[in-house]
Amino acid sequence: MCLLPYERIDDLQLKGLKIIQHPDKFCFGIDAVLLAHFADVKKDDIVVDLGTGTGILPILLKGLYPEHKSIGLEIQPDMCQMARRSLLLNEIEQYIDIIEGDIVDLPEQIVRNKYNVVITNPPYIKKGTGIISGNKSKMIARHEVVVTLSDVITAAGKLLIHKGRFYMINRPDRLDDIFIGMTKHKISIRRIRTVHPNFESAPNMILIEGVKDGGSNLLWDRPLYVYNVDGSYTDEIHSIYGEMWSN
Amino acid sequence: MCLLPYERIDDLQLKGLKIIQHPDKFCFGIDAVLLAHFADVKKDDIVVDLGTGTGILPILLKGLYPEHKSIGLEIQPDMCQMARRSLLLNEIEQYIDIIEGDIVDLPEQIVRNKYNVVITNPPYIKKGTGIISGNKSKMIARHEVVVTLSDVITAAGKLLIHKGRFYMINRPDRLDDIFIGMTKHKISIRRIRTVHPNFESAPNMILIEGVKDGGSNLLWDRPLYVYNVDGSYTDEIHSIYGEMWSN
Repeated sequence: MCLLPYERIDDLQLKGLKIIQHPDKFCFGIDAVLLAHFADVKKDDIVVDLGTGTGILPILLKGLYPEHKSIGLEIQPDMCQMARRSLLLNEIEQYIDIIEGDIVDLPEQIVRNKYNVVITNPPYIKKGTGIISGNKSKMIARHEVVVTLSDVITAAGKLLIHKGRFYMINRPDRLDDIFIGMTKHKISIRRIRTVHPNFESAPNMILIEGVKDGGSNLLWDRPLYVYNVDGSYTDEIHSIYGEMWSN
Repeated sequence: MCLLPYERIDDLQLKGLKIIQHPDKFCFGIDAVLLAHFADVKKDDIVVDLGTGTGILPILLKGLYPEHKSIGLEIQPDMCQMARRSLLLNEIEQYIDIIEGDIVDLPEQIVRNKYNVVITNPPYIKKGTGIISGNKSKMIARHEVVVTLSDVITAAGKLLIHKGRFYMINRPDRLDDIFIGMTKHKISIRRIRTVHPNFESAPNMILIEGVKDGGSNLLWDRPLYVYNVDGSYTDEIHSIYGEMWSN
């Protein structure tokens, strides 16, 4: 497997899966892992990941839900190349397509079909706020410079089949924009799970499940706490990562 | 003080305040207490409580924030009478007006002014769902038979001054309707606090602060847990009721 300078191979501890990452580019964090576990991907689903980056979400989903296919859309050519090399490394290139293209102007290759599931870990930081990273790849992943929350939801609305499912992780302070955008594109919020550093803290992430043309009641999961008060991981985080470790 | 048959006087344990309640009508619960504590009422504010019932919210607010005035709007004449008798009992009738009228068709006496704060503990149960209580007063308080969430938010939108604050408690599964209604009436959600039976449970109530013509960021408070896992009240609940007890 050909690695470019400074790239490294990280073991996902999940069915032997690995991922190529570059320390100066955006590397996956706990949010991708929580989102992959929160999603409910069924047999024969076709999943689109909007802004796939290194391909972390399709690769994790492949480990968790083997019998589905997915497409990762990514605007940065170098990230597409890196993601494709990770697929080859894992010998899962027949299950996952990485397509270079823009969420705002969806490639014909993607937009000509509809999909059961759209998943996304979009930039959290609202346009015009926050300290912009000097690193282009990290900036695109974290800040709404190339794509906004509204763009991501608009794309999901276009791509989902009737009753198709939409999964996203974001910051809790974006929930108003999420509701407004999803309502506009006829995606109902079906399930919310707040993620908290520990049980004494306000949430710092929020997991959302939406349904295209939905109308079911909004359900709230119990909160997900990452750490115990003593700083150790909670049993649930151990169990999420343990599922990855034990496979 | 004249009590009607079966009415009783309950001590609010807050600055000597009392309330008249009738066991067959809607009696206040923890939601009113949490909402009164969540609200931020400032000196000289004029507060409107939409659907005041027994007047519990204006009476609690009077105990917590002495230097303000309030108006309780209530559609049921017998509840208005009972609330007015509670004001007389507490000798606070000069600070609180109980006005008989409909949230959907606001009385001229209320709608001719604008207010700093609107507060409401509206019926939680969506029209057409849930088991309807046979008791009319309880039914009106719990079910959207006389007033819907949308009606309450519409009234708040009409009554609030620019940057006026809106406080509500509701069920978490109504958050989508709350966001949609508040957005329509130009009330931004500024603060959310989820209330959970205990830290292992999904929220069963949600406290909302909105701002008319707002635009500030959405903040999440840390969760409020009512019980410890052993079934005892949490320190925070003790402190909320303790504040009532110690005054």
